[in-house]
Amino acid sequence: MKLLRVNMKELQTTWEAVPAAYDRLGGRALIAKLLLEEVPPACDPLGPHNKLIFTPGLLGGAGVTTAGRLSVGGKSPLTNGVKEANAGGTSGDTLGKLGIKAIVVERLPEKGELYLLHITNDGAELLPASHLRGVGTYATSDRLQEQFGADATVISIGQAGEYQMLGAGIATTGERDQRSNHAARGGLGALMGSKGLKAIVIDKPVGKSVHFADVELFRSTSKNYAQKLINDPKLGTKGAQHLYGTASIVAAVNEMGSMPTRNFGSGTFDQSEDLRGEKMREVILAREGKVGTRCMPGCVIACRNQYVDEKGLPIVGSVQYETIALVGSNLGIGSLDDVAQLNFMCNDFGLDTIETGAALGVAIEAGLAKFGDMESIVSLLNQVGEGTILGRVIGNGAVMTGRTLGIRRVPATLGQAMPGYDPRSLKGNGVTYATSPQGADHTAGNAFGARKEVNPLGVEGQKELSLKLQIIAAMLDSTGLCLFARPPIIADPQLMVDMVNGIYGWGWTKDDYDRFNRDVLRNELEFNRRAGFTKEDYRIPEYMREEPLAPHNVVFDVPDAELDAVFATL
Amino acid sequence: MKLLRVNMKELQTTWEAVPAAYDRLGGRALIAKLLLEEVPPACDPLGPHNKLIFTPGLLGGAGVTTAGRLSVGGKSPLTNGVKEANAGGTSGDTLGKLGIKAIVVERLPEKGELYLLHITNDGAELLPASHLRGVGTYATSDRLQEQFGADATVISIGQAGEYQMLGAGIATTGERDQRSNHAARGGLGALMGSKGLKAIVIDKPVGKSVHFADVELFRSTSKNYAQKLINDPKLGTKGAQHLYGTASIVAAVNEMGSMPTRNFGSGTFDQSEDLRGEKMREVILAREGKVGTRCMPGCVIACRNQYVDEKGLPIVGSVQYETIALVGSNLGIGSLDDVAQLNFMCNDFGLDTIETGAALGVAIEAGLAKFGDMESIVSLLNQVGEGTILGRVIGNGAVMTGRTLGIRRVPATLGQAMPGYDPRSLKGNGVTYATSPQGADHTAGNAFGARKEVNPLGVEGQKELSLKLQIIAAMLDSTGLCLFARPPIIADPQLMVDMVNGIYGWGWTKDDYDRFNRDVLRNELEFNRRAGFTKEDYRIPEYMREEPLAPHNVVFDVPDAELDAVFATL
Repeated sequence: MKLLRVNMKELQTTWEAVPAAYDRLGGRALIAKLLLEEVPPACDPLGPHNKLIFTPGLLGGAGVTTAGRLSVGGKSPLTNGVKEANAGGTSGDTLGKLGIKAIVVERLPEKGELYLLHITNDGAELLPASHLRGVGTYATSDRLQEQFGADATVISIGQAGEYQMLGAGIATTGERDQRSNHAARGGLGALMGSKGLKAIVIDKPVGKSVHFADVELFRSTSKNYAQKLINDPKLGTKGAQHLYGTASIVAAVNEMGSMPTRNFGSGTFDQSEDLRGEKMREVILAREGKVGTRCMPGCVIACRNQYVDEKGLPIVGSVQYETIALVGSNLGIGSLDDVAQLNFMCNDFGLDTIETGAALGVAIEAGLAKFGDMESIVSLLNQVGEGTILGRVIGNGAVMTGRTLGIRRVPATLGQAMPGYDPRSLKGNGVTYATSPQGADHTAGNAFGARKEVNPLGVEGQKELSLKLQIIAAMLDSTGLCLFARPPIIADPQLMVDMVNGIYGWGWTKDDYDRFNRDVLRNELEFNRRAGFTKEDYRIPEYMREEPLAPHNVVFDVPDAELDAVFATL
Repeated sequence: MKLLRVNMKELQTTWEAVPAAYDRLGGRALIAKLLLEEVPPACDPLGPHNKLIFTPGLLGGAGVTTAGRLSVGGKSPLTNGVKEANAGGTSGDTLGKLGIKAIVVERLPEKGELYLLHITNDGAELLPASHLRGVGTYATSDRLQEQFGADATVISIGQAGEYQMLGAGIATTGERDQRSNHAARGGLGALMGSKGLKAIVIDKPVGKSVHFADVELFRSTSKNYAQKLINDPKLGTKGAQHLYGTASIVAAVNEMGSMPTRNFGSGTFDQSEDLRGEKMREVILAREGKVGTRCMPGCVIACRNQYVDEKGLPIVGSVQYETIALVGSNLGIGSLDDVAQLNFMCNDFGLDTIETGAALGVAIEAGLAKFGDMESIVSLLNQVGEGTILGRVIGNGAVMTGRTLGIRRVPATLGQAMPGYDPRSLKGNGVTYATSPQGADHTAGNAFGARKEVNPLGVEGQKELSLKLQIIAAMLDSTGLCLFARPPIIADPQLMVDMVNGIYGWGWTKDDYDRFNRDVLRNELEFNRRAGFTKEDYRIPEYMREEPLAPHNVVFDVPDAELDAVFATL
């Protein structure tokens, strides 16, 4: 495999052999290590010393089902700490097939210049992209596929990334006309914008494939693994996650009183029934949209939907739980049509729906719009795409919006907005938000799935649960696996060990696997420590520790000492 | 002496005996200790747990010349660390005479409520102040003196403080019609705004005076001290500091290439001659304004000016060097009339001229106005007073402005804008900016005066110089002394020891004095440490370490190891 370095100052691309330190890493694990080795932890995240990394997981390109996610990383301009965000689509699979361990984008171009990186089967080149300035991610993808082929993968930023807004993410295309897969979190779109990189186009690999060290071991294990997913009652063709996607949890989160509602002002939403996955499936099918499709090649879960309007025309896909919570209930919006519209706008501008939904909630609390009122909310969101001053404030996320408008109730930790689980009534997630080196992030260790084993309202067992989940999340994000695909690996880690050995022949044991996963967190925590972070930087906001949340009237009361002990046994 | 606690939630005032821990403290020393004892270091600075403290220095009220400054403090909403800012006027002297060691404002009122605190000779009461909402500091002072007497002291915030802008300061009146003394730095005006406290009115003390433990010792020493100031060639009636005030240094700072020019883009300003103190004196005298007046009762230096327009009508007083640098050269403004107008606007809105000047410089770099163009600059500044979205951005200071507008060149450390000395060509100040628990602040330890002893462009000797200056600054800010009044005390610390013993009878030695001063810094550093600060939080911005400054083409190159060693011998 090889590494592609892209120097935006010299406008040069350089292929190199993968350095030994990175050889057995991928995805989030590679990002953590590369940041620690190459990026000064206290550097200006939008300055010349930060690096933007694109890397498939260890399984990328090998054809393992549900394992083609692309990890994007760098020092986050939002949290100022380590950041990895990942997305489906075809890019993870494609880079893996091309034998590209990582693309590392370095330095800064002359101010205001805009480029695109074109990766062919045998090379790479930087091309001018000023004609794409101010173009949204959908049209950017369309135009580049017209130019480079409909089967090319396009990774791009929208206006938000060009403006270097801290709420900007990175979009990547998928199979056929699939558009909106986003490595959304942590402001990585702003980092890409600072590098003057509008897009990356990757030609479809022709005659390229992964070399297997033990093809038989790999094939039998990956087949076994896929079959386990198919047989899983939640994930198989009759399972809720296939049928309703991530939105299948709306009713449950609402019932447990953890659904962010009106700027995290309540844990239940009176119109939540209209936002359920079951309802969404019904609407989409009635309008002849699509449900049960996949976001990555070969995925057997296929939870993706394509939301359509009343005429059956596509609005956005896939509408997911986090978006429903943050631009739905959190803004007092009880209509899936409205959620889909806001979702599309965020995707096209290249904005994280979580960060932006949280910022809009704060702006509404400041009186700039009304909860539940689409017209005023759309007007605010449009300003983000236009880059007005207010748009820049909101596009910079919840913390900046709160600070500018004088609002203290900002649901964020480490500078990053919370996803769709209020930490007061799902305290395990609160522990993750308040300890993860990634900031408030459900994908870093989501306790929702364990709500029946550990009382979400209690303190006991949360820190052990969070650590366990964070280690698993580190594994998922480093191998390219989707969160949904974790149950078989958790039940039998030997599956992962064998797939990795089948590809690479490293002779991994389960101990190696466990060390690999833990090293991700160790490296990330060390990067943040060197960047100047202390435990005080990670805390849940003061108001959430003091203002009770309806309906359970609970505060976040996990003691600091418990939080500080989460990584004691890492 | 006694302590006045003001609870804004219960709307109660309570007198209490000074707790033993605070008994031998005053000003900045008291603030540091009180924060450490009573305020959770990681608390939300605009939330219920922060406290706003008003306290005279140890000499306050005793009639020592040049020693009547009022210290204001709390956890800074701008830096998130410890903060003390002080101002002249009559409040320090008045509180001292009334035997009030400190006013401590606690908790939060109902949202949007506004009060004033009236302190009489024998009591205190909270009164509604909604009629003063949106009123600038000048009119607030006028109206309250009309109501409570022309000899009452008024401490107030303007619109900026009401909006809780991070660039907001606190104004206090002086003798007669004197208005604009400001405890400007660190966003303490926002903290006062968060407490719903528009103003404090202090009646003139009648028949109240400080009790002296050894009146003879005190009188002889304070007289001796005053005489030394009068005899000082720089401070006496023929000295540059009396004649030209702080603006006397314009030529020298410009010549050494350290005068912030066009957003710290150069160290010399082509129109600096028009901004000199000598020129200002000439203009003011020709227009029959005032020079050589005092900002505090009994000051023998008398460096204050009252800048007037061509008709002799007052614009603002006192125009000082920092303002000339930050809203003058830093904005490309080469006219004292223009500087005075911007100064007045900042004072009336209740804004720190340093923070706001730096924010405006950043906004100009983003293209929102033009360097040297008053019309576009005034238009931006007016928006701050009006509280438009852009006004809120700029009013929140340089860092927030840079972040919102996507500008990396933000001259700030610890979140606070730098004063009028570029750290690249006055490296001693850079060391202070990058190590002081107060953030970028010349009053925390200004190496300008030592430019002939330690080469301002060199690295050697800077860390020792900065430590020495920071210890002296801690003493000044804790005793109520003006920066200008330090030479006799530095030459003979026994003067301070004897004045303190004359008032309090503590039997201080020079060792006690030295320990007292160092303890201020120790307590402040400890508060910041507990708030989660590490050395990485204090650094000079990356661009100043890499982009050379004209005319000397120097970067800030004091190694981190030197910075980290500044307090090794504290």
